[in-house]
Amino acid sequence: MEYRRIKDQDKDEDAVHDDVESLRGKPHSDSPINALGGSSVDRTKWKRKSVVTLALTVLTSSQAILIVWSKRAGKYEYSVTTANFLVEALKCALSLAALARIWRKDGVTEDNRLSTSWDEVSVYPIPAVLYLVKNLLQYYIFAYVDAPGYQILKNFNIISTGVLYRIILKRKLSEIQWAAFILLCAGCTTAQLKSNSDQVLQTPLQGWVMAIIMALLSGFAGVYTEAIIKKRPSRNINVQNFWLYVFGMAFNAIAIVVQDFDAVVNKGFFHGYSLITVLMILNHALSGIAVSMVMKYADNIVKVYSTSVAMLLTAVVSVFLFGFHLSLAFFLGSIIVSISVYLHSIGKPQR
Amino acid sequence: MEYRRIKDQDKDEDAVHDDVESLRGKPHSDSPINALGGSSVDRTKWKRKSVVTLALTVLTSSQAILIVWSKRAGKYEYSVTTANFLVEALKCALSLAALARIWRKDGVTEDNRLSTSWDEVSVYPIPAVLYLVKNLLQYYIFAYVDAPGYQILKNFNIISTGVLYRIILKRKLSEIQWAAFILLCAGCTTAQLKSNSDQVLQTPLQGWVMAIIMALLSGFAGVYTEAIIKKRPSRNINVQNFWLYVFGMAFNAIAIVVQDFDAVVNKGFFHGYSLITVLMILNHALSGIAVSMVMKYADNIVKVYSTSVAMLLTAVVSVFLFGFHLSLAFFLGSIIVSISVYLHSIGKPQR
Repeated sequence: MEYRRIKDQDKDEDAVHDDVESLRGKPHSDSPINALGGSSVDRTKWKRKSVVTLALTVLTSSQAILIVWSKRAGKYEYSVTTANFLVEALKCALSLAALARIWRKDGVTEDNRLSTSWDEVSVYPIPAVLYLVKNLLQYYIFAYVDAPGYQILKNFNIISTGVLYRIILKRKLSEIQWAAFILLCAGCTTAQLKSNSDQVLQTPLQGWVMAIIMALLSGFAGVYTEAIIKKRPSRNINVQNFWLYVFGMAFNAIAIVVQDFDAVVNKGFFHGYSLITVLMILNHALSGIAVSMVMKYADNIVKVYSTSVAMLLTAVVSVFLFGFHLSLAFFLGSIIVSISVYLHSIGKPQR
Repeated sequence: MEYRRIKDQDKDEDAVHDDVESLRGKPHSDSPINALGGSSVDRTKWKRKSVVTLALTVLTSSQAILIVWSKRAGKYEYSVTTANFLVEALKCALSLAALARIWRKDGVTEDNRLSTSWDEVSVYPIPAVLYLVKNLLQYYIFAYVDAPGYQILKNFNIISTGVLYRIILKRKLSEIQWAAFILLCAGCTTAQLKSNSDQVLQTPLQGWVMAIIMALLSGFAGVYTEAIIKKRPSRNINVQNFWLYVFGMAFNAIAIVVQDFDAVVNKGFFHGYSLITVLMILNHALSGIAVSMVMKYADNIVKVYSTSVAMLLTAVVSVFLFGFHLSLAFFLGSIIVSISVYLHSIGKPQR
C-alpha cells in the first residue's frame, strides 16, 4: 500500500509533531525550548506549524465574515464559477512568485524544480475531482434538507476526517483524542443550534445517506491531499501547490463553460465584481494556500480544529460587526470545543 | 482542620475507589478480579458501590417519571409538607428495621449501637438546615427566573459540588476528570435546551447571584453530608442515617405547622393522598437512602454522575411512556455526558 510508506518516510515530522503537541497543552511539560531540546531546526518547524495554523484560523473566520458582509450588501451578481477560477489562478500565481524567490536564493534543485514526473503528478487531479463530485451532490441534497439543516449535517465532516485520517494515513489518535474529536463534532453542532434545528431529525433516509457520502468525499479529499503532499516530504510545498492548483484551474474552467458560458460571453468575465468580490477572491486564495501549508507542516486534524475554532471566532466577531446575538447553545458549544482542544493537546498517544 | 483527618482515616476506601475506577473504564486494565487482587473484601466493596450507584440512578429516574405522571394526573391536592415528613419518617423506620436485623445477627456493638455522643450528633442537623435555607431561597429566585430557566441554572450544582468536594474533602480530581466535570455540566445543560432557553441569558444579576448561592448551598450540603458520614468509616450507615433523618423529621414537622397547619387540622393529615402520592413517598424515601449509601461507599462525584445519567434515562423512558419527543439538543447533550463519564473513568489521578 502506497500510504504506508508515507508514515515511515515521515518519522521525523512525526517526532516534531509529538513535541509540539506536548508543549501546546501539557501544563507539566517544560518550556518549548527545553521540550524541543533547543534544536533550532525543531524550533523553526514548530514556529512554522503554529504560523500556518494561526493563518488558517484567521483567514477562515474572515472568510465567513466576508460572506455575511456580501450577503448584507445584496445578492451575488457575479458568476461564482469565474470567481472560483480566479481563486485557483491567484493561488497558482502566488506559488510561482514564491518559487521564483526561492530559485533566486537557492538556485533550482531537485526539490524545488517545477518539472515533474507522471508518477508524481498523476494523483494531483484526484482531490479536485472529489471536491467536484461533492459540490455536484450539494445541489441534490437540498431536495431533502434545508440550508440550516445542511450546516448541521456538515459536521459529519469532522468525524469522517478523523476516521479516514486513521485508516488511510495510519496515524494514531489516543483514546482521549478520539473522545476529544467526537466532542469537537458535538460542540460545533451545539454552537450552531437554532430554535428550528430539530427539523433536521426529520431528514429522510436519502438525506442522511447523501450527507454521510458527502462527508466521506470531503474527508477523503482532505486526507488524500495530505497523503500526496507528505509523500515527498523534501519536495518544495510551492511546487506541490502549483500542480494542485493547475488542476483546480482546469476543472473550474470547465465549470465556467458548462454553467456560465452565456453570462460571461454577453456580460463579460468580470461582470458584477465589487470590492467585496475582490476581497473574497483574495481571502479564498490565501486560505487555500494556508490549508496546503497546514497539510504539509501539520495535518488534517489540526486543520479541522483550526476551522472549527474559526467558526466560533466568526460568531464572536459578528457580534461586534453586525450586532449578532450569541445564544446559550453557542456558549455551551464554545465550552465544549475549548475542552476538546485542551483534551486533544494533553491526550497525545503514548509510544 | 477536621476534614483533613477524614482523608487519612479513609485511605482504605480510597484505594478501593481507585481500583474500581480503573476497571470501570480502562480498556487495558485487567479483569475486575485480577485488578482487585482477588480479595473477596475488595470485591464486596466494589459490588456494594456499584449496587448503590445503580440503585440511585434507577430511583432518581423513576422519581422524575412519577412527577410527570402525577402532573398528568392533575394538580397536587395533598400537603407537600406532610408528604415530606412521611418521607423522613419512612427513612427513619427503614433504617431502624435494618438495624434491628443487624442487632439480631451480630449483637449490639460500639459501631452499630443507636446511642450517640454530642460530638457525633451535633453536626447532623447542619445539612438539614442548609437544604431548608436553599428551599426558602427557591421561592425568591422565581422573581428573577422562570421555571425552565431555573432548571438550566440548577446545573451550576455540578460545578459547585466539584469545587467544594476538592476544597472541603481535599480529594483530588485529575485534569482530565476536571475537564470531564465541566463537560458533564455543559452536556446536561445542552440536553435540556428548549427553543426559549436563551431567555435565561436575560436573567438579572440578582438572579445569577442567587442561583450561584443556591448551587453553593446545595453543593455544600452534599459535601458536608459525605464528610459527616465518612468521618467515622466503621460506624454503621443505618445509625448515621437514623440520626440524619431524625433531624429531617423535626424540620419537616416545623414546616407542617408553619405552612399547612389549617389544612391538616381541617381536612386531615392524609387528605388528597392517592396511589401516585404513596408511590412518590416510597420512591423519595428509597432514593434518599440510596444517596446516603452513595456518600458512604462512593462519593459526591459519583452521586452527581448518577443523577445526571438518570436525567437522560428519564427522557428516554418518557418517549415510550408519555410519547415525548427527543430534541437534537438532547442527543448532543447525551453524547457529551457519555464522553464525560468515559473520561472520568479513564482519567483517575496518578499517585
